[in-house]
Amino acid sequence: MDSQVFLSEVLGTAILLLLGAGVVATVVLPKSKGFDGGWLLINFGWGFAVFAGVYVAYKSGAHLNPAVTIGLLAGGADFAEGVDGTFVNMLLYWAAQMIGAFLGAVLAFVAFKKHFDEEADPATKLAVFSTGPAIRSYGWNFLTELIGTFVLVFWIMVAGGSVTGLGPLAVALIVVSIGASLGGPTGYAINPARDLGPRIAHALLPIKGKGSSDWSYAWVPVLGPLAGGVIGGLLGNWYVG
Amino acid sequence: MDSQVFLSEVLGTAILLLLGAGVVATVVLPKSKGFDGGWLLINFGWGFAVFAGVYVAYKSGAHLNPAVTIGLLAGGADFAEGVDGTFVNMLLYWAAQMIGAFLGAVLAFVAFKKHFDEEADPATKLAVFSTGPAIRSYGWNFLTELIGTFVLVFWIMVAGGSVTGLGPLAVALIVVSIGASLGGPTGYAINPARDLGPRIAHALLPIKGKGSSDWSYAWVPVLGPLAGGVIGGLLGNWYVG
Amino acid sequence: MDSQVFLSEVLGTAILLLLGAGVVATVVLPKSKGFDGGWLLINFGWGFAVFAGVYVAYKSGAHLNPAVTIGLLAGGADFAEGVDGTFVNMLLYWAAQMIGAFLGAVLAFVAFKKHFDEEADPATKLAVFSTGPAIRSYGWNFLTELIGTFVLVFWIMVAGGSVTGLGPLAVALIVVSIGASLGGPTGYAINPARDLGPRIAHALLPIKGKGSSDWSYAWVPVLGPLAGGVIGGLLGNWYVG
Amino acid sequence: MDSQVFLSEVLGTAILLLLGAGVVATVVLPKSKGFDGGWLLINFGWGFAVFAGVYVAYKSGAHLNPAVTIGLLAGGADFAEGVDGTFVNMLLYWAAQMIGAFLGAVLAFVAFKKHFDEEADPATKLAVFSTGPAIRSYGWNFLTELIGTFVLVFWIMVAGGSVTGLGPLAVALIVVSIGASLGGPTGYAINPARDLGPRIAHALLPIKGKGSSDWSYAWVPVLGPLAGGVIGGLLGNWYVG
Repeated sequence: MDSQVFLSEVLGTAILLLLGAGVVATVVLPKSKGFDGGWLLINFGWGFAVFAGVYVAYKSGAHLNPAVTIGLLAGGADFAEGVDGTFVNMLLYWAAQMIGAFLGAVLAFVAFKKHFDEEADPATKLAVFSTGPAIRSYGWNFLTELIGTFVLVFWIMVAGGSVTGLGPLAVALIVVSIGASLGGPTGYAINPARDLGPRIAHALLPIKGKGSSDWSYAWVPVLGPLAGGVIGGLLGNWYVG
Repeated sequence: MDSQVFLSEVLGTAILLLLGAGVVATVVLPKSKGFDGGWLLINFGWGFAVFAGVYVAYKSGAHLNPAVTIGLLAGGADFAEGVDGTFVNMLLYWAAQMIGAFLGAVLAFVAFKKHFDEEADPATKLAVFSTGPAIRSYGWNFLTELIGTFVLVFWIMVAGGSVTGLGPLAVALIVVSIGASLGGPTGYAINPARDLGPRIAHALLPIKGKGSSDWSYAWVPVLGPLAGGVIGGLLGNWYVG
Repeated sequence: MDSQVFLSEVLGTAILLLLGAGVVATVVLPKSKGFDGGWLLINFGWGFAVFAGVYVAYKSGAHLNPAVTIGLLAGGADFAEGVDGTFVNMLLYWAAQMIGAFLGAVLAFVAFKKHFDEEADPATKLAVFSTGPAIRSYGWNFLTELIGTFVLVFWIMVAGGSVTGLGPLAVALIVVSIGASLGGPTGYAINPARDLGPRIAHALLPIKGKGSSDWSYAWVPVLGPLAGGVIGGLLGNWYVG
Repeated sequence: MDSQVFLSEVLGTAILLLLGAGVVATVVLPKSKGFDGGWLLINFGWGFAVFAGVYVAYKSGAHLNPAVTIGLLAGGADFAEGVDGTFVNMLLYWAAQMIGAFLGAVLAFVAFKKHFDEEADPATKLAVFSTGPAIRSYGWNFLTELIGTFVLVFWIMVAGGSVTGLGPLAVALIVVSIGASLGGPTGYAINPARDLGPRIAHALLPIKGKGSSDWSYAWVPVLGPLAGGVIGGLLGNWYVG
């Protein structure tokens, strides 16, 4: 695989996490000008973070998400123009996405450094990096993540080839939609790299007053989205034919 | 009618309801991260639910709504490329839409299962599935639903053939608009399947602490939208010529 | 002028006011499900009302606004394909816009009838129909309306011919922008028909508990926008060349 | 350089600031109808202000921002069709942007004059014109501005040539995104002219009850964005090749 493709996934996912972690920081960290800005702000923030990242990752098909990559593999689709959908390529995409997500979270931490230094609940500080359930129940949380990611990947399989002038805006609005509609129970990772990369960053970074990185939950926003991606890819391929 | 067309309406309407019921659940169910997220969140949530569903239902013209189907029939339009607008086809579309709406509501219930288990007013739990009036007055409620659906179907008749790059975004924004502007009195079903399918799901599902499915109101969000759709189709056809 | 052109302005402006007055009703009338929904809801509501109306009025160039019509006349532009920009045609457009605005406001009243019957401040009930100043000061209010409308008409003059796939969405977002940014002091009529037509409706309709139609202010949202439209048309023509 | 290009940057930046300062005024000034409208309103307000300004400045490539201009110079890109990226042209763009930003802020002041006359904290009145940090810490504030502007200019370098029908909407949504995600700590100038031009206006205008123009902070939203623009231009050029 071309190193430009790898770099593309790194950069795109880094932009995604810089802006995505950033909007959570804006809403939850003390003294932020957007403090308590509401769920719709979170939803548009993440959606437009995808919008920005997709443009940046134009050389790699802009998956930005291991669940999308595994879904395309399951659905028998190419990863990008000139990039076959193979198991090895999937692992390379996953590595690039994890690196990018880690880097983006670190940059978001830098941008909000003084706000992380303020007093706040450790769980609030973790929330900038990784998702957590509103009601902890691993099975149901897994199902919620699976359903949300299924919608994303199934939609990509179906709509990928449709011709409108919206370009990356279409998938951005789908992400707004999934967040607005299915994000209430788990905070919608719907992307293993988006959750795990920043969780590692949270564990490593010298964040003042930080608490646990909640590793006991970490498998849910990884395996739930992967399962949803596979199902979305398979059903999408079956439906589109 | 091709079974793919039937399946298309089922899947598109299922996605519509999964996301549409989902955004209401996000806003009204206890402990949801988007609790009390506001009317604009509801409006964008439903609008983008339409956006997602329209892409998915590309094989059937993406009606997703019996009022649209009857409106197109009244206006003398085809249902989709290769699908004539006939009474029998209308019944098949209606069946597909009802099945899809039922399935989507069930999926939304699964995604929010633990939040349905929390204590909440039975009316709140019903609100995730079906609409209800802010001020109960069947005649005026009927008129409000009629007017909202008229706008939708009249707009589709007029704008259907216009050439912009917006694709499904245009109709999605019209739905945002109708919700923002005309949803205040009845919660804007503007779609009989969207209301009746999930109401049946509410009646059948084992929802903890559920109350009445409010069947006495159920005819309003069915007949109001159908009436509005017919008028919209007739007037649209007359205006566009 | 073709009667279809006249009808087009009537219908488009009626849709504009039905949805525009509707979003104000949604936010200010008691017991509405969108009560107290916020300024951004108002802004998007009016913007998407324009979006809907522009599609509907495709036969007349979709002015929907006497200030746009006089601005195009001042700027030496045609009113629509096949419709010359003349003084007589302007008067016909104005008449159509006034009729449409009146009808749209009446329909919005019907949709919210039961909410108008509730107890509320008479000024609140008037606000659904017509604008009023936050701080009454006719000269400054006039200037604010002039500036807002100048932006609208100048933008239309400059951007009218630009080629993007956005179609009616572009002008809709400009209206969102003007409302969000310049609507705070006067509630942004930026359109004489939008304000005067519904004010007449307010005076004539049997609204329970209604108060004054505030005729002493009525000239401001008429003359301010007209002045802004003329300046926008002249400057736009000079700039675009 | 053609005087039309200079004028284009003046007018576009004036529209940007009129609408951008306007949305802040709408949210923070007493008695405004959009008072306390929230962060998302601010974000969309500024984003759509860019949207409007970009159309207006179509003759000059619509930089509207010295950081964009210096970034394009650093990245070796032309400034617009027929306008070479040279140091002298950069200074001319900067001058035009400063003039436009000053004029736009003055117009916003006129539009909200009566609201500026109300009692309010002097810092609130300054906030309409220029940004200020949530937590004052020049080094970290500088970094936050640098990161936000980097995202903007890097995205422009990467996405500038991509073909979608979104036109100016794409960059507008990126500005919404940067504001939503990275604006919490400093209020996101991400544009030296946007901050400095209005700060000069604040110093000169006869604003009732105004306080300091906070010149000690003024260098941060100038140098931070310029640094971010240079890095974005260089990295963008390297990545796009």
